[in-house]
Amino acid sequence: MFEPLQAAVDAATGLNSTLERTADLVGVFFFAVSGGLLAVRKGFELVGVVALSLVTALGGGVIRDLLLGATPPTAFSDVAYLVVPLVAAAIVFVAHRPFESRLRTPVQLFDAAGLGLFAVTGSVKASAFGASAVGAVLIGVISAVGGGILRDVLANDPPHLFHPNSRLYAIPAAVGATVIVIAWRNDLYSGTLAIAVAVGVFAIRVAALRWGWRSPKPLFGDR
Amino acid sequence: MFEPLQAAVDAATGLNSTLERTADLVGVFFFAVSGGLLAVRKGFELVGVVALSLVTALGGGVIRDLLLGATPPTAFSDVAYLVVPLVAAAIVFVAHRPFESRLRTPVQLFDAAGLGLFAVTGSVKASAFGASAVGAVLIGVISAVGGGILRDVLANDPPHLFHPNSRLYAIPAAVGATVIVIAWRNDLYSGTLAIAVAVGVFAIRVAALRWGWRSPKPLFGDR
Amino acid sequence: MFEPLQAAVDAATGLNSTLERTADLVGVFFFAVSGGLLAVRKGFELVGVVALSLVTALGGGVIRDLLLGATPPTAFSDVAYLVVPLVAAAIVFVAHRPFESRLRTPVQLFDAAGLGLFAVTGSVKASAFGASAVGAVLIGVISAVGGGILRDVLANDPPHLFHPNSRLYAIPAAVGATVIVIAWRNDLYSGTLAIAVAVGVFAIRVAALRWGWRSPKPLFGDR
Repeated sequence: MFEPLQAAVDAATGLNSTLERTADLVGVFFFAVSGGLLAVRKGFELVGVVALSLVTALGGGVIRDLLLGATPPTAFSDVAYLVVPLVAAAIVFVAHRPFESRLRTPVQLFDAAGLGLFAVTGSVKASAFGASAVGAVLIGVISAVGGGILRDVLANDPPHLFHPNSRLYAIPAAVGATVIVIAWRNDLYSGTLAIAVAVGVFAIRVAALRWGWRSPKPLFGDR
Repeated sequence: MFEPLQAAVDAATGLNSTLERTADLVGVFFFAVSGGLLAVRKGFELVGVVALSLVTALGGGVIRDLLLGATPPTAFSDVAYLVVPLVAAAIVFVAHRPFESRLRTPVQLFDAAGLGLFAVTGSVKASAFGASAVGAVLIGVISAVGGGILRDVLANDPPHLFHPNSRLYAIPAAVGATVIVIAWRNDLYSGTLAIAVAVGVFAIRVAALRWGWRSPKPLFGDR
Repeated sequence: MFEPLQAAVDAATGLNSTLERTADLVGVFFFAVSGGLLAVRKGFELVGVVALSLVTALGGGVIRDLLLGATPPTAFSDVAYLVVPLVAAAIVFVAHRPFESRLRTPVQLFDAAGLGLFAVTGSVKASAFGASAVGAVLIGVISAVGGGILRDVLANDPPHLFHPNSRLYAIPAAVGATVIVIAWRNDLYSGTLAIAVAVGVFAIRVAALRWGWRSPKPLFGDR
């Protein structure tokens, strides 16, 4: 039913070519690694590692597709979106140590890349499916951060990105999604802009990690 | 696709006029306040306050719309349903103290009003979309209490309404939804009845708060 | 919209006759008992017992139907799927002791039967709705274990099936769903096969309980 729309989204975003799909799946891979590593740290067994890898990698996109009525979600119709996180889970299962030490920085970098890509594709898809402007921004953010929130809920942690010591994560995604939606509504959207915004979100996130940027804490009110 | 149905629901409920939509958004506002306050109490930063405000205010209605296949959910197509809880989150962020002290009773009162309104609109919408009678009652209850449950899950608390010291919350919603569904199935439904039931749910909840009514605890069985 | 598809699924699975529907509802009943018992152990009141019973019994099937776009989910259109877990919740509420002592083994056996049945019906329904092969297996597993995971999330526990001391639970469901999907794709699927696979999943789970079979824990990596 949504195939013509989907084709329109693909055409509009230019994100369905081999190059961009590869980039998307790289983001899925490293989101899956972050989920698997949390499961290892929590002492879960095989099923826990696989489940947290899948949920972290695919949760944001699945929530996005459910909200838009685009069922079955991409993750369940395009088999690569399941194979890639399953491979990530297998690698983490047999060799999680390097990811926790030497590979910590690459994992954070690719997670930041996934954040930017998912914020862009989520807000574009939501715009094409008729969400309101604010709704499309929110769906872009949910696409980018929803998997990580589900990961933390299943691991019985409060979501990491709500922690006062966390570095900017949802805010760069929101900024990127806002740029995309404004451009979309003013017919300024293009594949080039999509890449530029994804890179911008990535850069803000990496800078936040590097220089310790945090989002503000609640004020004390009228006391 | 669902627009004619939606129009039928609106016509049937009489809940889409300016007055009732305002009442609905007032409920959204105070649900959002309760979510933001929990985030403040948990020590979350800005993103956590915004996320818990949005989830508490909109979670019940989003689950209802997903279950009914009414996508995208109202919260993502009618922009007021996002702006109002975002404003609530901003107010809580800069001035949460008065809500915790002087304004505690008003927050509870408006939360009770939201409970009644959401139980009514949820069970009416579910009936119009062809849920079974018991299913429509359950969807009414989920609309009313689902946001609060998601709020507690994201804050890593057991749901407050399951606590043995909690005052009646889901039960008045279930009673109200049952009255609505019985009336709907016997062609006795009207906008006047909707208001009366919402007021009744509100009154039971407020009485439960005032006089400490609790729901029963499990019995000891055959020992 | 999905009614012809649903009829095809029913015809293909042969799982809609009186006998099989009864078996399915027996699984729902004992899943509901396991949810209610966890609520009792957590010290929740009436609403908590009812909510955990419903979520455990119906959560997996509801997630399955949402992912497939089959709304409203069966649980909200076929009233028996709500009445049965509500009866289970009522029984647990007034007489939970025998389920915790004398009836513990029967509860585990029927839970294992539900696991096998839901893995089969979930993967068949997903195949008929056009999920990828791996996606259909995953939806089968989610149908079987999703209710239990939601139960644990609402009770604020890490999911029991991720615990390193848990006995095989998701893995037999995954094996069963894989057999079903392979058969479906090669036109070897039949009602007899469905029953055989459900029995096989049941047998592996019961053997895992009896002889303490666990799934592997993460390896130590390259240290």
